[in-house]
Amino acid sequence: MQHLRHCQGLARVSLIGTQRTYLVKGAAPAVTTCVGPLSVRWQSHGNHGGQSGQAHTGLSPRWRHLIAGLVAGTGAVLAYGLYNNQAERAATSIEPVTPSSFPIYSQNEVTKHKTLDEGVWVTYKGSVYDITNFISMHPGGDKILLAAGGALEPFWSLYAVHGQDHVLEILSEYKVGELSPEDRMKQLKMADSSDPYSTDPERHPALHVNSLKPFNAEPPAALLSDNYITPNALFFKRNHLPVPRVDPKTYKLEIEGLPGRPVSLTLNDLKTRYPKHTITATLQCAGNRRSEMNTVKQVKGLNWGIAAISNATWSGARLRDVLLDAGYGPEVAAKARHVQFEGLDRDVTGTTYGASIPLVKAVSEIGDVLLAYEMNGEDIPPDHGYPVRVVVPGTVGARNVKWLGKIVISEEESKSHWQQNDYKGFSPSTDWDTVDFKSAPAIQELPIQSAITQPADGATVDRSMEEVTVRGYAWSGGGREVVRVDVTTDGGKTWHIAQLQNSEKGQEPASSPPPGQAWAWKLWEVTVPLPTETQELEIMCKAVDNSYNTQPDTVAPIWNLRGVLSNAWHRVKVKINEDNEEEE
Amino acid sequence: MQHLRHCQGLARVSLIGTQRTYLVKGAAPAVTTCVGPLSVRWQSHGNHGGQSGQAHTGLSPRWRHLIAGLVAGTGAVLAYGLYNNQAERAATSIEPVTPSSFPIYSQNEVTKHKTLDEGVWVTYKGSVYDITNFISMHPGGDKILLAAGGALEPFWSLYAVHGQDHVLEILSEYKVGELSPEDRMKQLKMADSSDPYSTDPERHPALHVNSLKPFNAEPPAALLSDNYITPNALFFKRNHLPVPRVDPKTYKLEIEGLPGRPVSLTLNDLKTRYPKHTITATLQCAGNRRSEMNTVKQVKGLNWGIAAISNATWSGARLRDVLLDAGYGPEVAAKARHVQFEGLDRDVTGTTYGASIPLVKAVSEIGDVLLAYEMNGEDIPPDHGYPVRVVVPGTVGARNVKWLGKIVISEEESKSHWQQNDYKGFSPSTDWDTVDFKSAPAIQELPIQSAITQPADGATVDRSMEEVTVRGYAWSGGGREVVRVDVTTDGGKTWHIAQLQNSEKGQEPASSPPPGQAWAWKLWEVTVPLPTETQELEIMCKAVDNSYNTQPDTVAPIWNLRGVLSNAWHRVKVKINEDNEEEE
Repeated sequence: MQHLRHCQGLARVSLIGTQRTYLVKGAAPAVTTCVGPLSVRWQSHGNHGGQSGQAHTGLSPRWRHLIAGLVAGTGAVLAYGLYNNQAERAATSIEPVTPSSFPIYSQNEVTKHKTLDEGVWVTYKGSVYDITNFISMHPGGDKILLAAGGALEPFWSLYAVHGQDHVLEILSEYKVGELSPEDRMKQLKMADSSDPYSTDPERHPALHVNSLKPFNAEPPAALLSDNYITPNALFFKRNHLPVPRVDPKTYKLEIEGLPGRPVSLTLNDLKTRYPKHTITATLQCAGNRRSEMNTVKQVKGLNWGIAAISNATWSGARLRDVLLDAGYGPEVAAKARHVQFEGLDRDVTGTTYGASIPLVKAVSEIGDVLLAYEMNGEDIPPDHGYPVRVVVPGTVGARNVKWLGKIVISEEESKSHWQQNDYKGFSPSTDWDTVDFKSAPAIQELPIQSAITQPADGATVDRSMEEVTVRGYAWSGGGREVVRVDVTTDGGKTWHIAQLQNSEKGQEPASSPPPGQAWAWKLWEVTVPLPTETQELEIMCKAVDNSYNTQPDTVAPIWNLRGVLSNAWHRVKVKINEDNEEEE
Repeated sequence: MQHLRHCQGLARVSLIGTQRTYLVKGAAPAVTTCVGPLSVRWQSHGNHGGQSGQAHTGLSPRWRHLIAGLVAGTGAVLAYGLYNNQAERAATSIEPVTPSSFPIYSQNEVTKHKTLDEGVWVTYKGSVYDITNFISMHPGGDKILLAAGGALEPFWSLYAVHGQDHVLEILSEYKVGELSPEDRMKQLKMADSSDPYSTDPERHPALHVNSLKPFNAEPPAALLSDNYITPNALFFKRNHLPVPRVDPKTYKLEIEGLPGRPVSLTLNDLKTRYPKHTITATLQCAGNRRSEMNTVKQVKGLNWGIAAISNATWSGARLRDVLLDAGYGPEVAAKARHVQFEGLDRDVTGTTYGASIPLVKAVSEIGDVLLAYEMNGEDIPPDHGYPVRVVVPGTVGARNVKWLGKIVISEEESKSHWQQNDYKGFSPSTDWDTVDFKSAPAIQELPIQSAITQPADGATVDRSMEEVTVRGYAWSGGGREVVRVDVTTDGGKTWHIAQLQNSEKGQEPASSPPPGQAWAWKLWEVTVPLPTETQELEIMCKAVDNSYNTQPDTVAPIWNLRGVLSNAWHRVKVKINEDNEEEE
């Protein structure tokens, strides 16, 4: 950051090894994602003359992530933060056309300029730009040609990173004309419908939205522990791309990598050819509780609270049954190691969301991996993968691919950004300068987790009550059952053992799941006395699973640059209100 | 403790609900094991007149555990601490016979008194005791009748708890005569051969012995990390009972609980009828690193250091193959849940060591449970289960039953003390007054673990070296692979990532195990700079496995009354020697 600030203008940054160069301006926003360590050449220009140099580590991490985010290749850009007023305005508002000395072009004229030979023109907000000389510098590479001869708005609305002042400033350098008023009106009419998020479903107003496009939201923590089964509307939403609208009548699931011809299954096939299997399983985002990591040091990612976790019943065909039916056998088992999933949600280049799980989990008799078509007894809602999603119980949310389009049995993990360069854990001392994504395994099973949902952090409890009831959830990955939750109000000197609940309140407790198949969380509750000598109380909880793994005491030693796997003891501070004295 | 001290003599203690009463004296040693909360009635007598009362919690935990230990029923007494000079002397030495006013009895006369009707007599060190009135008060219950008409020594040598002054004092009250000198000599000659530990094998002198009878020992920590595969002689030993001497020619393994007649297999059957399967697997005692818990608050159990863990290659028949061959199928799977193992090691009542594992682990295609007959390419040594032991990789040592005699497929866990009332984890706030062993699951998979083997705690490193090389081991249960070890020398501000080693030093690294089958530890090493400003250095390590579980920061929050599952960050303090200054 400081490095480029010295340039006082624009910098031409080329990523060594990528042959890509980009112009960036001093004030960059924190952005999105990364692709590992980069060496960067930079050259400033603009009003104050040029400077140039080469930096392998000289650029601040923040800058390098911006660049990395822009470069991240096909499908690699996480468009979180896309809910950006600038981008929205760009796509929908009409701005006054000021007289200019630029020539007027019709859309037809612009459309003729689609190749490097004829020059590449684009339009943006009624202006025409010849970006031919910029193509080789575009951090997103050839993807820029998708907009050749047309408007930038539909593409920029997909990638929040473009909705920044410095990008507009770069663009302005390439302006060659104005679009004719008639063609501009046509474009604006199209803008609304070209927003890929325009068909996203309605959401529940109680959700706390972390990002609108793509939609990422969590329920209020207090509501979370009200129900053992989270209602669909309140189930946390974590989308990476726009929600695809899939016609169940024409839906096809392709299966590749098995002997013989690829298999194609309709929704009806899935519902009728395989036994309907139902499990109750908790899904958790790898970034749940990321906000606590931010208190140690800023990380990259959505600022999730403690509610990027929810519990539902899921029904569908067992992936094992489908694979066996489709030709899976010892011959495949001898070679293949992974099952890759591709979603039907795709970015502007057509790259779909993707992830993979170990084959051994997919075919395990006790793995319970589902091609689910029902969530809590209803068709899976659009936000959760309608008509078919994978449910990989015990495994991080990111592998539970929604809007499932394709299954590939393979010797290799998914090549997707989300499998290779995201959703991995690192040492607290690993930073964006030193991170090697190949050095860590993709997150699959998640570690033991628990959190306090009530009282909320900062809440006030009444001294006259003499005690406080603490509630929360606890869950562990890999089918490991939570066996105990301990709660302390004296800094860990004494611990209160919480009552665990594995069914809706007031219902009979469910029977204990078989070993290795405890997919669902436990809610818990314990009432502890209020201390008499203090006006503030810190409540902490920790859970233990049946492998006797337990949560680490503190956040700092598990801090990691992506802010995933945040599972230290959960802490809330509450104030004790002395209002009973006033009543006397 | 204080409670009984007031009695200034003997107390008659009856355990409410058990109808057993015992006489105990003020100064009790810390003993062995427990069976949950007890209510106790007490009545003092002796020189200073009687007192009586009833205490549900009035007795100190130490007392109650003594009592619990004595009561612990068939096979429930853990004879740790059995290496007791008194007990040894009792069994082997000749003491001068002092003239006494007691009548002289022959062994024949004593032998006639074996029943309550005729009176129960026993001998001890040449004296004869009529213990008829004591039978109902014996905390060990009817087991005492095993000694009726004979010598106590062979039984007391098995249970260290009797080798205490107060027990002798109680016994003295029941003295009725002296054994004839001829019969006493005969007894003494037999004593040596009646020591059930007399046929225990020779052990390596480098081992640190925690208990001689039964034998429990660990290698020096520094030696542990010298070899990726621990040599058999240095592999930690954890016996619960005397080592049985098993004749491989007559050895039979019984299998019950499957359809049809029980199956009986010879050693040759195991070696020839099933494929020989070899795995490298680390075994760890649940009590490894217990000594660190003792620094928080004293726990009950052997004071293990950090080396109750070792790594070996094991070869044998897969339990899955044997069970399938013996009739295991869907019919059994539908009902049974556990596989119980019985050892051929037995206590004086004939009760064998026992444990069980979940059936799902036993029959899993990737569970790798072995009926092992080789350890590191040799016949399994006597201390490790010759001729056949179970190896349950990823699972606590206690379930890896040695000298395997019987397998029972069952709907229930093993009823053994070690499955039901030991080897379980509890909250730090659970004490011997409140513990309910039914409330916690038997330990199976162990949590993530790591420790520093070099430098040793308290070692001195040379300032002139400017850096120190830190070595250790890391392992996790359930086949979860260790993916990272972090080491800090500044209290956790910065972490150094250690190099992991999954084969002998200097050899090619082994290929990565399939998911869920990482049974072997990783050794690790990292060289860190010595700080310039301090003369003492605290080195800490923590490991992470591929479910991203990590070790808790500190010991106190995972402290538990049995001192098991001790896996907080390992800490060693070293001194930095300034001797290079002297050289100048």
